[in-house]
This record gives sequence, C-alpha cells and structure tokens, in this order.
Amino acid sequence: MDTKTFRRLGHELVDWIAEYRDRMGDLPVMSPLEPGDVKRLLPSQPPAKGEGLAGLTGDLDRVVLPGITHWNHPGFFAYFPSNSDLASVLADLACAGLGAQGMSWQTSPAATEVEEVVMDWLRQMLGLDAAFTGVIQDTASTSTFCALLCAREWSSAFGQARGGMQAEEAPLVVYASDQAHASVEKAALLAGFGRNNLRLIGTDDQHALRLDLLERAIQEDLAAGRRPCAMVAAIGTTATTAVDPLEGMGRLSADYGIWLHVDAAMAGTAMICPEARWMWKGIEEADSLVLNPHKWMGTGFDLSAYFTKDPEHLIRVMSTNPSYLHTDQDGQVKNLRDWGIPLGRRFRALKLWFLLKDQGVEGLQARIRRDLANAQWLKAQVEAAGGWELMAPVNLQTVCLRHVPAGVTDEDDLRAHNLAIQGRVNKGGRFYLTPSVLKGRQILRVSIGSAATELSDVEGLWKALLDAAAAV
Amino acid sequence: MDTKTFRRLGHELVDWIAEYRDRMGDLPVMSPLEPGDVKRLLPSQPPAKGEGLAGLTGDLDRVVLPGITHWNHPGFFAYFPSNSDLASVLADLACAGLGAQGMSWQTSPAATEVEEVVMDWLRQMLGLDAAFTGVIQDTASTSTFCALLCAREWSSAFGQARGGMQAEEAPLVVYASDQAHASVEKAALLAGFGRNNLRLIGTDDQHALRLDLLERAIQEDLAAGRRPCAMVAAIGTTATTAVDPLEGMGRLSADYGIWLHVDAAMAGTAMICPEARWMWKGIEEADSLVLNPHKWMGTGFDLSAYFTKDPEHLIRVMSTNPSYLHTDQDGQVKNLRDWGIPLGRRFRALKLWFLLKDQGVEGLQARIRRDLANAQWLKAQVEAAGGWELMAPVNLQTVCLRHVPAGVTDEDDLRAHNLAIQGRVNKGGRFYLTPSVLKGRQILRVSIGSAATELSDVEGLWKALLDAAAAV
Repeated sequence: MDTKTFRRLGHELVDWIAEYRDRMGDLPVMSPLEPGDVKRLLPSQPPAKGEGLAGLTGDLDRVVLPGITHWNHPGFFAYFPSNSDLASVLADLACAGLGAQGMSWQTSPAATEVEEVVMDWLRQMLGLDAAFTGVIQDTASTSTFCALLCAREWSSAFGQARGGMQAEEAPLVVYASDQAHASVEKAALLAGFGRNNLRLIGTDDQHALRLDLLERAIQEDLAAGRRPCAMVAAIGTTATTAVDPLEGMGRLSADYGIWLHVDAAMAGTAMICPEARWMWKGIEEADSLVLNPHKWMGTGFDLSAYFTKDPEHLIRVMSTNPSYLHTDQDGQVKNLRDWGIPLGRRFRALKLWFLLKDQGVEGLQARIRRDLANAQWLKAQVEAAGGWELMAPVNLQTVCLRHVPAGVTDEDDLRAHNLAIQGRVNKGGRFYLTPSVLKGRQILRVSIGSAATELSDVEGLWKALLDAAAAV
Repeated sequence: MDTKTFRRLGHELVDWIAEYRDRMGDLPVMSPLEPGDVKRLLPSQPPAKGEGLAGLTGDLDRVVLPGITHWNHPGFFAYFPSNSDLASVLADLACAGLGAQGMSWQTSPAATEVEEVVMDWLRQMLGLDAAFTGVIQDTASTSTFCALLCAREWSSAFGQARGGMQAEEAPLVVYASDQAHASVEKAALLAGFGRNNLRLIGTDDQHALRLDLLERAIQEDLAAGRRPCAMVAAIGTTATTAVDPLEGMGRLSADYGIWLHVDAAMAGTAMICPEARWMWKGIEEADSLVLNPHKWMGTGFDLSAYFTKDPEHLIRVMSTNPSYLHTDQDGQVKNLRDWGIPLGRRFRALKLWFLLKDQGVEGLQARIRRDLANAQWLKAQVEAAGGWELMAPVNLQTVCLRHVPAGVTDEDDLRAHNLAIQGRVNKGGRFYLTPSVLKGRQILRVSIGSAATELSDVEGLWKALLDAAAAV
C-alpha cells in the first residue's frame, strides 16, 4: 500500500475507532452472534487479485463489529477487564508503523532501552525495590511458564544442559493453591513436571492457601524423596481475588529453598496505590512476579510485566547464542530475545510510555481507587439486601455473590437459579457477566474495572440483578 | 484519552508514519546510536502527573527514531526481512482500537472465525491439502516449541497427565540438522528433553541434513534404549536457506514413528508461488509446520502460522478447562486459547485479511518473484566477479558470499577481511548486513526481501561490496 492511500484510510480508520468508542455503550456488550455467523460473510477462497482496501470501515461494520464482545464497554463485568486506552492504541499504531524488531539491542536500540526505562518506572510505581528487574512478556500464562522453567533449572542445576527433565531422578514438585489460575497447571505440565508432581493446596474460608497444608505437603514430598521446586502465590485469585499468605510462603520458600513466584496478574495494577500494598506484603521475598498492565492499567493487550530478581538466571535458561545473532554490542547491552520464549519482539514498551505520559501515576491511581470504591458500594448493597449472599471477601474490584430465594437450599437448584439470573442479565445486552464455580457453588462474579465503568453502571447492574432475580 | 484528542493525535500519527515511510530510504538503515543514548533522553522516574500526548510525534522524532533500525528500508539485507505492509499497519490499528480478546469464541466470535477463514485461505495459497489446520502463533520459536511439546506428549502417551518428563524411563530424543535454527535447540531444552537428547545431524555440501547420518543416529538411539520422538526439517535454513531432504525424512518419520515438524519460517511464504514448491516436496507427510507471514509476506510482526494435522492433539496438550472459561458454545466452536501457550489472544487475523484483500495472491506472488530474481542476479554477479566466492546454493532470496583476496588462504585472515567489508558497508548507512559463520567460515550473508528493495538497491549493495573489498 502506498503512503497516500495509507493516509486516507488511516484517517478514516482513526475516525471510525473514535466513533466506535463513542457509541460502544449503546452496543450489546456481548456479541449476540451464533457460531458460523461471521464465517459465512467471508469468501471461502483467498482473493486472487487485489481489490484495495476502499470500503475498509464498511467491512469492519458489516463483518467484524457484530462479532465483537466489547471489552472496553461500561457494562463489561466479565472475566477480568482488558482495557485498551486510546493512548495505548496510538502506541500500537506507532509500533506497527515503525515495524521495528526488538529481538536484540542493535535491531532497534530504542525498543530495548525504552522498555528498560518504562519497566523501571513501573517497578517504582508498584513500590518494588531495586532488586527486581522487569521485562515485557505477552501474557501471565507465558510469564508463569517462564517462572516455572527458571525454577526447574535452578533446582536441577541446569539439567537442561544435560539430560533435561528426563534425567531427574527425584521428581521436582510445584505447589499452588486449589484456587490458582489454570495457567499454573498448564505451565507445570508444559514444563514437564507432570500432573502427579503438582500439588494444589487447600484453601481457607477466605479462599487463600493454607500454610499448614502447604508445609505438610512439602514435608511429605521430602520424606518420599521428591524435591520441592517452586511455589506460586496468587495475589488476587481469578475466581474471588483471594490473597495467599505471601509472608508465610516467603518463609517456607527460604526455609526449604523453593522458588517463589507471585501471580498478581490482576491485582498487581492496584499496587500503584500504596494503600493496596498490604495485599502483597512480603513481596520482597519473591523470586519472580507477574502482573498484567493489559488488564486493569489500560496498556492494551498484550503487555504482561515479568519481574525477576535474577536476570542472569533467566538469560541462561532462555538464551541460545548462534553466530547470526551476534552483534558488536553484545555484553554491553540487554538483548531481550534472551529474556523469554519468542525470538522476535514488538515495541510494546511504547504502550506503557504513552499511557503514563498521558495520565501520569496520579491519573491511574484515581481510576483504580474509583473501581475499588465501586466494588465496596456493590458489596454494601449485597450485604444490605435480603436473599443475597456475599460469597467471598471483596479485596479488590471483584464481588462474588449469589441470590438465595427463600426456602431454597439445594445447591443444584441454586446453581440453576443463579445461572438463569446471569443468562437474563447477559441477554439484556447492557451487561456481561461470566460464570464461576467456587468450591462447588455457582456464583455470580462481578468484575469491575473497565475504564468506562462509572458508579452509575454498577448501580445499573445491581438493578438488573435484582430485576432478574425477581423475574426468573 | 478522550475520543476528540484521539482523533487529532491519530491523524497526526498516521501522517507521521506516512512521512516516515516516504523518507525511510534516506535514513541510515542501521541505528547509529551507542548503548545508553536512548535511556539518557528519558526521565528516570515515571511522570506523577499526566502531561497529555501533545508533542507525541516530536517525542518519536527525538527519542525513538534515531534508535530505530529500519526493517522496511530498501537497504535492509540483514537477518531475514520483517515486512510490515501499510495494509497490515491499518489492521494493527483496528485490532488495538477494537481492543477485543480472542481467547474464546464467545469473547469475540469475529476474532476466532476470521482467523479460521484466513488461515484456510493461507493453506490454499501454499498448496497444502485440507488435512492441515492453521492457527496463528507469535513467532516460529513458539510454533516450534508447540510442535516439540506435541511430539513429546504423543511419544509419551500424554505423560504430562502423569509424571511428566520426569517419569520417562527411556529418554525421548529430538533430531535436527547442525544448520537448524537456534529455536529448535531452545524448544528442545525448554520442553525438558535435555541437550544430551538433541541430535544435531551433519549436513552435506549443500548444507542440507544427511539422511544417512540421521538414520544412523536413530538406530543408535534405539539400540541404546532411547526413543526417537521428533525430527525437525528445515526448509530454508537461517544461514543459507538450505533445504533438508523432506521426502526422505518423511519416510524415516513413517518408518520409525517419529513426529515430523517442518520449519519453513522464511521459505514458507515462497510457496504461494507454485514453482517454489519443489523445496517442500513431501510436505504432506509433516505432522506440523511453521511459516512466518511476518517475515516476507508483509503481515507485520507478529504473525506466525502454525499448521497441524491433528488439532485435537494440540488442544489436549494445551488446554485446561476451568469453570471461569466455560461458555455456552463450548463443543460447537474453536476456543483458540487451547491452541497455544498464552491464554489471551489479539485479533491478528485482521492483518492477513487486510493484506490479502489489498494485494491479492497475485500481488504477493509478483513481489516474491521479484525478490527471487534479484537474488539470482546477485548470484550471477558473484560468480562472474574475480575474487568472490559463492558459499551456498541460492535456493531462495539469500545469497551467501565472501571475498577472497589473491593469495589469502588463512581462514582467520579471511574472517577479518570479510568482517571489515561488512563493517564498512554497514557504516555507510545505506545497507545493513548481519554476520554469519558457516561451518567455521565467515560469510557475508545478503538476505533480500524487504518490500521496498528493488533491483537497483541490490545493484547498489553489490557496488558497495566491491568498493569496500577494494578499500579495506
């Protein structure tokens, strides 16, 4: 495409995005399409001849938009948020336009050095001490995978340079709570530990890992000749934002020589507000840490922040050093290809830079505090209303609740009833909730944190829940 | 950022990108900066208060652009190309503006279904039969890692569901050539095979894997009680674009029950030209295959295409199924979170869609053919010139050469001489070459394939090489 056409279509697309964002609140938050609806709008064969991109925004309106679930919608209360602030959209545009590769320092020094600077800004914003060094990964799944690979190689004295996991005589074991995100299990399995060597430790009535059970499991594994390797502390679990006992886990990590990884994918963003840092008291004992600015902070997916206390170890796990990747600056600079799984790297640091320059730390703090207050508002409504139960502590921006009609005690009935409420709310188009099962009980999980969501939207959701409970 | 500001800055940035692309050819292709030059332009602390993004393009000019190595420059002959066509830049903008998550079908049906459609278009363009199903990964490193994980779980009858690699009594072994990309070694190590169980098989004088040595290694491993698990065929190696004997490897794969993965990261794009398909004759025997449209095709980084013959197996290796990810459509649709390592997914399929709609298959073919012809032109110059040696067959768009001054035979002297030539060419700012060592010999590696590179640029590079050889 020539630059003249790009200018014309680029302006058109920028305007289309602005209009989309302006009217997003009027669109149904969850796509109402049925499977196959998008596919049938596209030809089954690739275009032989180029048609140009005139009509681009028409295609987006016709083929794409009906099939979009609007993650930046004010009525998005599903999963965890995935905010894509418009400052970050500009950064993605700049990144694509530059088309630079950040695999080595020399392949675009700015990509590496801006990342170094903004990841250190982020470290400071979070109140982390200078022992931590940050690098951008794509997702928390990948970051946690990197952490378990680092733990594996640390416990095995770099077994990968010899016989790998296949030569380990005493199995290495990974520990997390039964509320840990599925990515922990996935990472442990992909890293070769095997499900038999993953311990999902029971949780207390706040849904936090029980230290006594963790220590007992460690001792049992040691007694059986297995080797405790890594533990993952969830600071803000996915279901309820439960907070594992990080200080106690840090002590066990030190006592038994076990790698401590902290999964604060969602909650980490809140740590830019000092009053939230009680949640990860003891964080200085962690060996590695992940949080996702692409969730609540607004940098746009994907930008997962991985912090490590031992970058040299990470590099040793991840690096290969073929001649075709050597540059004159090796040894003086960071080559970020050696800090993760992929070789190539986009210039994602621009997203964090643009966002921070635009809003400043104080701007981000104000939005986080708004969301925390909105969650407390909803919690108060649930507690005050008859027939509603709060299902977990409200530590962060997620409120777990359910409706219990008078006289109904059977869990299957309650499950069906609450799923019916959720279905009715979702069908209304203004709000989107996703289901969660908490220790066998069906809950309604309200995750607040879309940048567009104001108190009035939370009020609207609460009214919709009350109406749905009365109607089903 | 409000939409009014976004419109204004978005238009400004679109124009800035257009101007950048127009004047790129006049910029030094390799960034001339020294380590630390970018860092010192940025404050060491994050901005406390938001400043807005007025002056955005000024920041890009001042802080970023001098630190960019211009991968879309007509004088870019380094590594392999990483083309970012402007149609793809628009797609990245649309993707960021939509801010949609493609982890599950329901989280944005269009993201999943457009990907299904365009990956099937790509399959047809490449001449692959319908037994292959495609999915987008970030990079070839990750795709090859997925392939080795699938091979591992296939050979171990899903050992990850039990004791993992730690419980495998007879080691699983991976085979590739000594010219395989470093990502194969990295993937084998990260997947837990261990370096002792990776065989880098010797290559012939065309730098292609020797089948006789491969079969001997397999037999030795079997005799020693080890289990051959996976082999990786390089169709177009990184150093010289050598072509491994795929048909023969397919036979060995079938005879010995070994997973066959094909790394055609660069060469795969050429297969949209039927006359190039001799390179991967036998591809129908592959179990998995990677090619990177973000290299030569123009989709912009990252878009790596992973094809598998057994999607159900891939899903079983990669999936976890927690309650908070269930949706009503499970079972009827693809949930692409289960097709790779990360949970979240960007809407990358837009890049392939926009590019194909704009240029059509014929437009892409014409550009590929131009580059192949330019490589043959350069090859002819090298062969005709005195004192220059062609160091490998020119199968694709990469020409490996060196200058041998009269009477110089010592390899160390030749290494220093050719590195001096390269240094002089790179310092000139018009061209960028990266070094490669081929079986102990320093080569000059000319990788053609930037979309902006015309024959006149290759002519210019050849003249610069001649001048540098005369001057050093």
